[in-house]
Amino acid sequence: MAEKILKNIHSPADLRKLSKEELKVLAKELRRFIIDIVATKEGHLGASLGVVELTIALHYVFNTPEDLLVWDVGHQAYGHKILTGRKDIFDTNRQLGGISGFPKRSESEYDTFGTGHSSTSVSAALGMAIASNLKGETEKQHIAVIGDASIASGMAFEGLNHAGVTKANLLVILNDNAIGIDPSVGALKEYLTKARVGYKPASDNIIEALNFRYFGPVDGHDLEGLLKVLGEMKQIKGPKFLHVITKKGKGLKKAEEDQVKYHAPGKFEPETGELLKYETDGLPLKYQDVFGFTLVELAEKNEKIIGITPAMPTGSSLKYMMKAFPERAFDVGIAEQHAVTLSAGMATQGFVVYCAIYSTFLQRAYDQLIHDVALQNLPVIFCLDRAGLVGEDGATHHGVFDIAYARAIPNLIIAAPRNEVDLRNLLYTAQLGLKNPMIIRYPRGRGVLKEWRKPFEKIEIGKGECLKEGSEIAVLSIGNMAGNVSKAIDEIGEKEKIAHYDMRFVKPLDEELLRNIFKKYQKIVTAEDGVKKSGFGSAVLEFAAEAGFQGKIYTLGIPDEFIEQGSVIQLQEIAGIHVEGIRQKLESMI
Amino acid sequence: MAEKILKNIHSPADLRKLSKEELKVLAKELRRFIIDIVATKEGHLGASLGVVELTIALHYVFNTPEDLLVWDVGHQAYGHKILTGRKDIFDTNRQLGGISGFPKRSESEYDTFGTGHSSTSVSAALGMAIASNLKGETEKQHIAVIGDASIASGMAFEGLNHAGVTKANLLVILNDNAIGIDPSVGALKEYLTKARVGYKPASDNIIEALNFRYFGPVDGHDLEGLLKVLGEMKQIKGPKFLHVITKKGKGLKKAEEDQVKYHAPGKFEPETGELLKYETDGLPLKYQDVFGFTLVELAEKNEKIIGITPAMPTGSSLKYMMKAFPERAFDVGIAEQHAVTLSAGMATQGFVVYCAIYSTFLQRAYDQLIHDVALQNLPVIFCLDRAGLVGEDGATHHGVFDIAYARAIPNLIIAAPRNEVDLRNLLYTAQLGLKNPMIIRYPRGRGVLKEWRKPFEKIEIGKGECLKEGSEIAVLSIGNMAGNVSKAIDEIGEKEKIAHYDMRFVKPLDEELLRNIFKKYQKIVTAEDGVKKSGFGSAVLEFAAEAGFQGKIYTLGIPDEFIEQGSVIQLQEIAGIHVEGIRQKLESMI
Repeated sequence: MAEKILKNIHSPADLRKLSKEELKVLAKELRRFIIDIVATKEGHLGASLGVVELTIALHYVFNTPEDLLVWDVGHQAYGHKILTGRKDIFDTNRQLGGISGFPKRSESEYDTFGTGHSSTSVSAALGMAIASNLKGETEKQHIAVIGDASIASGMAFEGLNHAGVTKANLLVILNDNAIGIDPSVGALKEYLTKARVGYKPASDNIIEALNFRYFGPVDGHDLEGLLKVLGEMKQIKGPKFLHVITKKGKGLKKAEEDQVKYHAPGKFEPETGELLKYETDGLPLKYQDVFGFTLVELAEKNEKIIGITPAMPTGSSLKYMMKAFPERAFDVGIAEQHAVTLSAGMATQGFVVYCAIYSTFLQRAYDQLIHDVALQNLPVIFCLDRAGLVGEDGATHHGVFDIAYARAIPNLIIAAPRNEVDLRNLLYTAQLGLKNPMIIRYPRGRGVLKEWRKPFEKIEIGKGECLKEGSEIAVLSIGNMAGNVSKAIDEIGEKEKIAHYDMRFVKPLDEELLRNIFKKYQKIVTAEDGVKKSGFGSAVLEFAAEAGFQGKIYTLGIPDEFIEQGSVIQLQEIAGIHVEGIRQKLESMI
Repeated sequence: MAEKILKNIHSPADLRKLSKEELKVLAKELRRFIIDIVATKEGHLGASLGVVELTIALHYVFNTPEDLLVWDVGHQAYGHKILTGRKDIFDTNRQLGGISGFPKRSESEYDTFGTGHSSTSVSAALGMAIASNLKGETEKQHIAVIGDASIASGMAFEGLNHAGVTKANLLVILNDNAIGIDPSVGALKEYLTKARVGYKPASDNIIEALNFRYFGPVDGHDLEGLLKVLGEMKQIKGPKFLHVITKKGKGLKKAEEDQVKYHAPGKFEPETGELLKYETDGLPLKYQDVFGFTLVELAEKNEKIIGITPAMPTGSSLKYMMKAFPERAFDVGIAEQHAVTLSAGMATQGFVVYCAIYSTFLQRAYDQLIHDVALQNLPVIFCLDRAGLVGEDGATHHGVFDIAYARAIPNLIIAAPRNEVDLRNLLYTAQLGLKNPMIIRYPRGRGVLKEWRKPFEKIEIGKGECLKEGSEIAVLSIGNMAGNVSKAIDEIGEKEKIAHYDMRFVKPLDEELLRNIFKKYQKIVTAEDGVKKSGFGSAVLEFAAEAGFQGKIYTLGIPDEFIEQGSVIQLQEIAGIHVEGIRQKLESMI
């Protein structure tokens, strides 16, 4: 399809000159453009396809960037990016040095607030709206576009609850497609569903109860309807709410039919949506699946086991347990705080709770981890998925802070497996009468072994392992950094000089092993895929100071800056924790 | 008043043998007992007085401890503690070695879940209720008692939203007294107020919208009425909600009249409620008031300044700015996540936002600090009140993790003043075109100076100060630990050997100063009132390793365990950071 309209849209100002008929053509072309690029460059697909008409309508009706538009989560903002001057570089989406897969303030004045984690948009837009009132800019509009999965998160409720008692010019648009990455859950979702099917909430509906003017539900793919209702709402001062019904994946049949898979489908055939076959034979399984399958295995034998995920059944592979033991596995929605304290509540009743959370999202429940779990020393097991650098999702999603923030918490065990067998054995060990809460952190993506389903073996808590003896330098790695370290050592001529220890536990540290290492080696290198400040290396430094170690300790890890998007290997290189970086460091020390 | 009934109540089983008339006498006696003890021993008063009848009714109707009762926040649980076997030790409340001022699992089987921070009760009780269903204990009851300020926090919404789609035997009791520590705020509060004044929410009210059976509102001081409605609700399976109207401070006239002051009034005359006069002449001002007054001073000259507090206007002293500049100072309720991202939103529009949060409560917004503030490098200023050991509030409230968790975050400046003048100058400096977000942490309670209102001076970011030269040992302190260190050095005979540096900034560290210190001293001691793991001392260790420092570094701080309640001085002694502990350490090193 040759572009007629889109090619001339360099900013929303161009778009505002179009007729309604032209806008409809633009919607088709924009949808096509997104499909074509994502088909080859990968990325988030379904969410952006669902808001094509809404995106056009918003930029048409509102005077962006003067009016301020915040996209919650932001993976639905591809159309927004393309219409706001980034069409020509959109093929760099999510790549190193390219544009971010999420809105980003430093990228464009149209990206008024960086997102990535969900449910921040109401608070951010409200802050802007209150600021505008203070400046006397009372005509200015502030719009938060938030999905039905995201609005169910507590933070969004806090924002709505505050907004309702202000005079802020805040328009909250609920993009209701009944799905986040996985189908939405919860009582609010059921309530919203009633609205979708034609039951008109009464004038005291849940949104109006919070002092918002409520409009809708309207069809989010009816461009003219959207233009009309937004145009009317623009005239209304104060907090207002538009309920828009959309279809995730709209316009690509396969994406509409399998919304979970087409959330971020990888490469596909752009016309049909047919997914490209990736050759996976012989590749190791993903850590996520090792977790998912292993938990089912354990749950078959231990009926006390419960699985919890805040909105990531597919991503974390808890879906396997949800299928096998639906009564013992729970998707609680985007509600990390609740997930953690719910787990704690279950643990008080003697259950063995595996709470599967992405590392970056456990940041949302840091207080609950301290106050509800660790302080009470409840043996909840946190399966911290996507720990370390996650790649293309970029700065908002890297799981690089967990070691640092968790290490400060008393009672907590922190472990990181170096391979799939280790992960399995840690999961197995955790249900053998654990006395403390425990974090097991593992990376996004594939493991390193061909055979992962070995018989379970109990792992001693707080014990590391010598992977290779040496004579001069000891490298202490944690988790999957063992792989890079091993490869780096293999490439070194005088490899006999270098020892390699997999510490396995950040906490408790294997102090006995460390004392022996301190005796034997005067040069120590630590390697982790988390931030260096407060990280695993710092734990070693702390103990070395205590133990009176006189040698030299060099820490490898993420430097004190936010790391952007790129492939994991590219990002490891930036941090100097790729194989080559480790090799160079070690060679310089021999 | 001689006790007739209360003296014979050793557990709820005793209470269940009483007649309704006797229960009413018990209510009077329990209220009297709480007043008498709190009048002399101090503690939280108003909240517990408000739930005397509810406490009795709950233990009467439900089969505690088999039925599981969770008190949100928990400072209203004094009556509960007294009725569950802790009457005789209630006079040790909040003291070192005594009972906790909050429910605590290790203290009693009736304390099913430890609380302290708000809004956890729904999630915890729901976890228990789901666990009971899994065990086949379908008759078991699970009760969360939550206040109207706490239920407006996002976490509580997450719990309700999940509960509504379960078959859990969960009873949520809304203890609606229209006040937290300060008066409640927000749209939900306004909605609930309508219910209080007789407007009956429709059958699709906000609670029923979340699939709860809603009952109420009922008078929380009508004991017979409570017994009746609870008895009826006990028969109903699934999630149910009782809206109870109570008066905070009920039964003590002055406490009813000034609910903010009588939240935790200090010592008072038990019959009249008259507050005892504390001699404060000549005492330094509280850090909180220095903050509050200084912010008003700054806001008078800088109209871009905004103040935000999540529900602590009185505690943080933001109330002064709220009074002076009501349009630029906001209490957003118990909504730390929202408070932080709202601040970020305002900062994008060029405002200078001072977000006053207790250190322990910023844990609730850790992700927002990373994702919404630091990643975007928005220059929000976090005034971290009650940093360090807070004393009698105990383990749930100590602000000891902040340095550790914040230090891992790129872009963030972390400062701690050693006195009031320093605090003022940091607050002043922060509004002179700050380029980064900044934390200013200061302790609970009084400062150390008589004259605090000195002319403002700009502080150079990242610069420490030499307070005393020495020849052998350098002590590096952060924040108010400078006081203990100075006193300790003064008590040492060979004090000329000991240097003292106030580093003032945990981040960025004053590397130039540290290099000079490393050159001159081979023995270094760090001192902080935060956790040692990942703390300020670790920051010094990290830089020392980088700089190739060959000497000895000893870190003083909070050990890797949760610290219970007691006076700040007692708790400092436990941690070894009291004057005597520091002195001993230094003497042993000379």
